Amino acid sequence: MLSLDGGEPCRESRGGSRVTSLAQRLIERKRDNGRVEPGDWRALVGAYAAGHVPDYQMAAFLMAVYIRGLDRAETSALTDAMLATGARLSLEHLGVGRVDKHSTGGVGDKISLVLAPLVASLGVAVPMMSGRGLGHTGGTLDKLESIPGFRTTLSLAEATRQLERIGCALLGQSAEIAPADRKMYALRDATSTVESVPLIAASIMSKKLAEGLTGLVLDVKRGSGAFLPDLDRGLELAQTMINLGADRGCAVVALITAMDRPLGRACGNALEVEEAIHTLRGEGPPDVLGVTYALGAEMLVLGGVAPSLDAARRAMEVAISSGKAARKFEEIIEAQGGNPAVVDDPSVLPQAGACELFLAPRGGVVARVEPRAVGKGVTALGGGRTRMEDTVDPSVGFVITARPGDVVQLGEPLATIFARDRGGVETGLTALRNAIAIADEADLPLPLISHRVTATGVTPFAHV
Amino acid sequence: MLSLDGGEPCRESRGGSRVTSLAQRLIERKRDNGRVEPGDWRALVGAYAAGHVPDYQMAAFLMAVYIRGLDRAETSALTDAMLATGARLSLEHLGVGRVDKHSTGGVGDKISLVLAPLVASLGVAVPMMSGRGLGHTGGTLDKLESIPGFRTTLSLAEATRQLERIGCALLGQSAEIAPADRKMYALRDATSTVESVPLIAASIMSKKLAEGLTGLVLDVKRGSGAFLPDLDRGLELAQTMINLGADRGCAVVALITAMDRPLGRACGNALEVEEAIHTLRGEGPPDVLGVTYALGAEMLVLGGVAPSLDAARRAMEVAISSGKAARKFEEIIEAQGGNPAVVDDPSVLPQAGACELFLAPRGGVVARVEPRAVGKGVTALGGGRTRMEDTVDPSVGFVITARPGDVVQLGEPLATIFARDRGGVETGLTALRNAIAIADEADLPLPLISHRVTATGVTPFAHV
Repeated sequence: MLSLDGGEPCRESRGGSRVTSLAQRLIERKRDNGRVEPGDWRALVGAYAAGHVPDYQMAAFLMAVYIRGLDRAETSALTDAMLATGARLSLEHLGVGRVDKHSTGGVGDKISLVLAPLVASLGVAVPMMSGRGLGHTGGTLDKLESIPGFRTTLSLAEATRQLERIGCALLGQSAEIAPADRKMYALRDATSTVESVPLIAASIMSKKLAEGLTGLVLDVKRGSGAFLPDLDRGLELAQTMINLGADRGCAVVALITAMDRPLGRACGNALEVEEAIHTLRGEGPPDVLGVTYALGAEMLVLGGVAPSLDAARRAMEVAISSGKAARKFEEIIEAQGGNPAVVDDPSVLPQAGACELFLAPRGGVVARVEPRAVGKGVTALGGGRTRMEDTVDPSVGFVITARPGDVVQLGEPLATIFARDRGGVETGLTALRNAIAIADEADLPLPLISHRVTATGVTPFAHV
Repeated sequence: MLSLDGGEPCRESRGGSRVTSLAQRLIERKRDNGRVEPGDWRALVGAYAAGHVPDYQMAAFLMAVYIRGLDRAETSALTDAMLATGARLSLEHLGVGRVDKHSTGGVGDKISLVLAPLVASLGVAVPMMSGRGLGHTGGTLDKLESIPGFRTTLSLAEATRQLERIGCALLGQSAEIAPADRKMYALRDATSTVESVPLIAASIMSKKLAEGLTGLVLDVKRGSGAFLPDLDRGLELAQTMINLGADRGCAVVALITAMDRPLGRACGNALEVEEAIHTLRGEGPPDVLGVTYALGAEMLVLGGVAPSLDAARRAMEVAISSGKAARKFEEIIEAQGGNPAVVDDPSVLPQAGACELFLAPRGGVVARVEPRAVGKGVTALGGGRTRMEDTVDPSVGFVITARPGDVVQLGEPLATIFARDRGGVETGLTALRNAIAIADEADLPLPLISHRVTATGVTPFAHV
């Protein structure tokens, strides 16, 4: 008899509209390794944002994209299509360069908190749109919100006024910005289609371009704690984003940095704000300062206020030693409703209920400080999220002073645990026992900053 | 700042249950070209049928399956998993072989209507579950329902009683049978993941195995009007289904038949019932009779009532010439509430409001009678569906007497159009002008039946 499964599928059995037909046609095209044209990207993404293409069709399409890939023109068209679904900052009237930094995410990465005021204090506008922590990674918004009163939900109009006034605004992605990207990212998250270089690049760039940037600096992490641990895929992401920017008048430079261990010592929201403040005062850990200077120098050159990376570095040293950078952070905090006293006195930050030292369980050399284990430990303490709707405890986390390669004695303090209570301390001890490995010898850690990627290619990183 | 897109995706941000995690893990596995284990198929398909896995996750999974493929063990596990979500006929107590036929779908394919009574009249139980037409193909259920009063919505209990009494039941797929397959098929239809050999094979076999069969004969169509036009993919489907049956005590034999032109002359629901009745009386077109005998002989041998294909053929000829096969059709129609008088007097079928001959627009040789164009023409007349919820007009269609290779004169009748009204006649004329090509010479049509596929391999078909 005739085929419960056999007949030609009805092209419109489930939706029936022209839009449904378009979705099916494009799913087929990508499934069969074909190219999707710019007009079709606009139509598909627009219809999805408007709710005319159902999630299940977009999910099938995204899986086909994940497996088949996108070429440069397709990635570019997707970026434009997502950008077009939302509003964008219009900042040409500021008359200065607008530069942001994006990190692919890591543990202990508080660089944004340092860079934004530092670079803004030197005359580059920094419209910085950030995300929340998820999984093992922290998020800049969560860190900022550990400052009492700090508000990250600025409208684009508020952000624009603040940029006009003090040259920097630190905000979350509002519903105004690339709503299609927001919806697609949630869907990718639920359907295992996140780790696709063109989809990641288009997602990031659609939001960054909405900030009206003239330049963007990328911090692409590599190593076990990175989102894309392999150097090759990190370089591919960098190159893809550089191409996307180049086509739209936004110069992009990427640095490849190490995420085989946490960045800096503090891991946890308020603890990282405190470390960022120390760094703004010139007292931060060397790796935090190193990454800050390297990324900041690129931002200042892209922003047109420094003639060279060397000159930019010297300007940043002055901004820090003079207190100008710290004062800019105070201005930003005050503008966004936070308590600016935190910059002089970090003890106004939420304080943990219980602290305890973590002591070396044996002598030897620190072989690893595993960032994923540390990040999950922060989450276990209540300082991170396993789902988007979780709330975070800003006070908890770790300050880990031990670094891979350090020679340590039995019983020597390697870290401090900041927990809600005694139970949390136990949780923290267990997490650090997993995260910190002491052995008879250690492999060489990854170089802090290994490569610099620009439109002209990849070069080994030269410290400025 | 930290990564709107950069962090490790939250494994549970959208659903949060254990089932969601399973779905994501299996999507990832298949996405990365891995194998899904039997227990995981059961869990995933069961959870999907129960509504615990959302459509968007299943859509992403099915696209990964479409692109990456399934091996024999996976196809088998998927079949079992879908079968397990529903009920099945238990027919061992009948004490006779239970054999069904499945066609991959075509235009003018009324073979089921002939085969079911013919084979049942010779002592093989035929529990025949059929589908509705969609796209350019017709459906056995729609054809049966053109018989006044005929009811295809039998429960499994009703079907069992009817099989006990008269050895045949013609029914639609109820909600009791493989509900996961039903749901997945609708989703595949909407997400362009239909044409996957393992998914098609598992879908068909999950339903066929629910019929409690001891044998199954497959009619795999090839040619421009077929669902899988390529011979190679047809053979792959046949082999896959033979393997699935072999693992479960259901012997499967497949014949590869031509669908580069309609099968028989009548295309349209009531018109095909009439042609089927003619065939049951020994008066059908040679190709309909040829396919009926070839498939029927396999069914009778598999059903254990004929020692050879030759003997089976002779038994069928007697059943037809003696009127026994036609009487069995009357019994079935009566049992399912239809008017059995139709077998002696097909004029009780719904009659079209307007008829007109289609005349050869030029002299020459009939180069093509394009089945998709004919099938779409039937739909345009109101006799088919473009979406599942459409109702069909049973009376309309075509009787096409011209066959590829026929030499015709200008103005010679090639077909008759049966339409609702004069407007429909115009629609039909336009459709046939597109469907029937007359040229100075014609390519050789495909052989009516070209290959026979069994567990031991593929052989050229030898007419019995």
